[in-house]
Amino acid sequence: MNIALAQINPVLGDFEYNLEEITQKVLEASKKGAELVIFSELATFGYMPSDLLERPDIVEKQILVIKKAIKKFPKDIAVLFGAVMPHQDLKERYYNSAVFVYESEIKSIFFKELLPNYDVFDEKRFFKKGELKENILNFRKKKFLISICEDLWFDESGVYENNPMDGIKEDLDYIINLSASPFTKNKLKTRKKILKNIALTQSATSIYVNQVGAQDELIFDGGSFAFDSKGKEVSQLSLFKTDLKMLDEKKEKISKDEYENIFNALVLGLRDYFKKTGFKKALLGLSGGIDSGLVLMLAKEALGAENVTGYALPGPYSSKLSMDLAKEISKNLGTHLEIFDVNPTYDVFLKSFDEKFGDQDFGLMHENLQARLRALTLMALSNKNGSLLLATSNKSELCVGYSTLYGDQCGALMPIGDLLKTEVFKLCEWYNRFKGSEVIPVEMIKRPPTAELRPNQKDEDSLPPYEELDQTVDKLITKKGRAKTDQEKWVLKRSFQSEFKRWQAAPILKISEHAFGRGRRMPLAHKTVIY
Amino acid sequence: MNIALAQINPVLGDFEYNLEEITQKVLEASKKGAELVIFSELATFGYMPSDLLERPDIVEKQILVIKKAIKKFPKDIAVLFGAVMPHQDLKERYYNSAVFVYESEIKSIFFKELLPNYDVFDEKRFFKKGELKENILNFRKKKFLISICEDLWFDESGVYENNPMDGIKEDLDYIINLSASPFTKNKLKTRKKILKNIALTQSATSIYVNQVGAQDELIFDGGSFAFDSKGKEVSQLSLFKTDLKMLDEKKEKISKDEYENIFNALVLGLRDYFKKTGFKKALLGLSGGIDSGLVLMLAKEALGAENVTGYALPGPYSSKLSMDLAKEISKNLGTHLEIFDVNPTYDVFLKSFDEKFGDQDFGLMHENLQARLRALTLMALSNKNGSLLLATSNKSELCVGYSTLYGDQCGALMPIGDLLKTEVFKLCEWYNRFKGSEVIPVEMIKRPPTAELRPNQKDEDSLPPYEELDQTVDKLITKKGRAKTDQEKWVLKRSFQSEFKRWQAAPILKISEHAFGRGRRMPLAHKTVIY
Repeated sequence: MNIALAQINPVLGDFEYNLEEITQKVLEASKKGAELVIFSELATFGYMPSDLLERPDIVEKQILVIKKAIKKFPKDIAVLFGAVMPHQDLKERYYNSAVFVYESEIKSIFFKELLPNYDVFDEKRFFKKGELKENILNFRKKKFLISICEDLWFDESGVYENNPMDGIKEDLDYIINLSASPFTKNKLKTRKKILKNIALTQSATSIYVNQVGAQDELIFDGGSFAFDSKGKEVSQLSLFKTDLKMLDEKKEKISKDEYENIFNALVLGLRDYFKKTGFKKALLGLSGGIDSGLVLMLAKEALGAENVTGYALPGPYSSKLSMDLAKEISKNLGTHLEIFDVNPTYDVFLKSFDEKFGDQDFGLMHENLQARLRALTLMALSNKNGSLLLATSNKSELCVGYSTLYGDQCGALMPIGDLLKTEVFKLCEWYNRFKGSEVIPVEMIKRPPTAELRPNQKDEDSLPPYEELDQTVDKLITKKGRAKTDQEKWVLKRSFQSEFKRWQAAPILKISEHAFGRGRRMPLAHKTVIY
Repeated sequence: MNIALAQINPVLGDFEYNLEEITQKVLEASKKGAELVIFSELATFGYMPSDLLERPDIVEKQILVIKKAIKKFPKDIAVLFGAVMPHQDLKERYYNSAVFVYESEIKSIFFKELLPNYDVFDEKRFFKKGELKENILNFRKKKFLISICEDLWFDESGVYENNPMDGIKEDLDYIINLSASPFTKNKLKTRKKILKNIALTQSATSIYVNQVGAQDELIFDGGSFAFDSKGKEVSQLSLFKTDLKMLDEKKEKISKDEYENIFNALVLGLRDYFKKTGFKKALLGLSGGIDSGLVLMLAKEALGAENVTGYALPGPYSSKLSMDLAKEISKNLGTHLEIFDVNPTYDVFLKSFDEKFGDQDFGLMHENLQARLRALTLMALSNKNGSLLLATSNKSELCVGYSTLYGDQCGALMPIGDLLKTEVFKLCEWYNRFKGSEVIPVEMIKRPPTAELRPNQKDEDSLPPYEELDQTVDKLITKKGRAKTDQEKWVLKRSFQSEFKRWQAAPILKISEHAFGRGRRMPLAHKTVIY
């Protein structure tokens, strides 16, 4: 059968836009001779809807737009797309559904069975479960099983008691999976393992269609694909871009380079956050360090150099090297650079503070003060120019609370908040290789990390070496492992003690299995459990 | 049967402490001649555990502490308490359980069936469901049904397909409900309606034991009670305090005054947040307005006047009246007052900013700058003194974004973030009546609300009158209703547009059915849906 895979970038809640995107892809598929075109999970609504589903009439509104749009579909093409469909009895309970349209009419609707309710996923909050074994579609003498995302992830998730695939007794020709699967490192491999395995065990063609585009903290990477009944990969759509391909069309080449994929994911995450919230311009503080250097580069790639301004904000302990590096990277990337001295404000504040409260020994207060004066300056510039501030904290810092709340943590988005410090370095090195040029100054990568908030400060004065710290963060946070050594226990304790900072952090673009952000729900007031 | 109801204030994850509290109450009940003593839901662990349940071995650790503690229970008293018990097969899946101990041994374990997974509740994230109809306990020739919290809330929640009570065919003597039910206005009435109704329909004594104490945003109000089989209230424990009473003991008098209960809830919320995070002292900015006045009063009541400092931070548009009122309320409450002028810092910052970026017309930037300079000052004082900053935003402001991110939104806790502005006024008036004195200056209640960030500014210049705004906020946010009028649509739009501010807000003490905070999960990047 001539089947097309269609990968769109929906805007959450923008039903007109999403149905227009779907319609354009249906017409394109039709021109290519498709008999069936398949879209991703909740393509009409956008994933993930969260509490938008609590707004009254929102699902009914979506259905009206769907019903109007499908009238424009050519009558001779079948269309399968994800949508939110209401529960027959319960108010504000829905099914995560796949809608089958043919001859410009809804012919059948299929319901998702396995509803992920862990990490970032809250599907049991609104969705009722269907039964996968009911999801058999007969079309043009072929038998299709229609599954939605998690339905095929029984083995990977490990949290369900029964595998819905066990109920499938039919002799299938096609196994379809409509998905909205967020990017994480190496996730594509896992998806392919599952779909290849199922193609082989069921002797059926397996087709996986994923959402593309970012939604707040989540980046959907697309990369839809298919396997034939012999387990041979027969289709591959683009990563990080909308796409449409016939099942037998020439495959897109997919990079195996982990850092290339992380780069593209973060650029998409940034770009879509700006586009979907209606902003064009970004600003950030440039410390001359590697974190803000990386964010500057990502912002330039996502928004264009003309839309990005870096601010060097020298304070009492800023070095000439830092200023030189801020200048150099701005020049290399073609982004604007402005320099604003926070010393006059710092001095006058401290003077009036000491007059009032007595002379203070230099301490944490003074360090935080510098970070907060910079944030205050950047927010003033954000207000002045209508630009969004980008926060530059990384996952290693966030874990141990090595960042200032209302200081360098400030921003509309935290693009590298799920990158370990060692990944920050590697991504910068990858970028320079990719560009064939030292766009990110080597000195910036080589110099020992420093916050420059007191004389001769180095991160490693207060933290373990990043190589060690990052292994620990990966083990304790990303992989949720045990703390055994004293150093691991120290890191775990710091992570609990700094939870209050992350409660108030900006959205973090998620690229790992488990990120700080909305998918991690740690309490603040509790007995710190160190093991 | 001689039954005791025991209401403890557990600390999340502090198993030793919680089991010690339980043991003390068991001994006390034993002395009073109790044959059975009943504790609240997850009394051993604390509610709600959230992602602490992802820490390895944490449940096993809890079980070790339980097993050790029950050995110390007197052998002739039966004890029923809530605990987290592991699923037999699945890793990191648990049952929300009630453990029955007799003769210093665990005799049986009962599992919760209805797992709330809406608003602040995420119980399907970790818990598997049991079956209520299995939860029959036979003890001393009496038949008990052991239910846990939501198990009896089928009608109220309205999101479940089947009522587990329908499966109960036994002739019951007692229906027990172990609960961890957060305070909301009038919630006690609802609880009693349910338990009275079930006592009558089952002709059994119904016993409800609730957690007391606060955990981050949630305040558990206790107020455990019982009805006899004729629907007569036979027991009532204290609100907002630990307690133990025999079933037939003299009932605690419960206030019907909504504002008295809100007051006690917020005081408990504040006190427990400090106690459970290990802090003693609070500070806040005193604007001379009613919001900071109310928070000052609550902090004084929760922490003692000696632990609370208010800072008046006059800026370019602060009035003499504001300063006078800040002084007056501090004097009335006996809290420390300090005055610190932010003008020198404001002036020097603006001077250097204008020199660099050109003269700026007065605008939003300047308003935010004042709020942020105050926050920076308060955070410096927080660092200096080891005090926690309290944020003073209310629900009406938060809804329409009438607060400054990284400005007056700053704080470790937002005690009145779930109070409408009109409720702020009423709570202050109640307090003055309660004290029989104008502790909160009448002028503070009477004066038109103003942020004093520009000359002659009044809140009602940019917002609808609070009487109207609050009705709309209650309708759209708390009750999740439709926006019909132009004003309602304007408020809804503002609420979506300011979601980014609330993403980074401090924890908000929840007192309404639906609060801003972790129980509301609205996306940031979406098409604003205005209906």
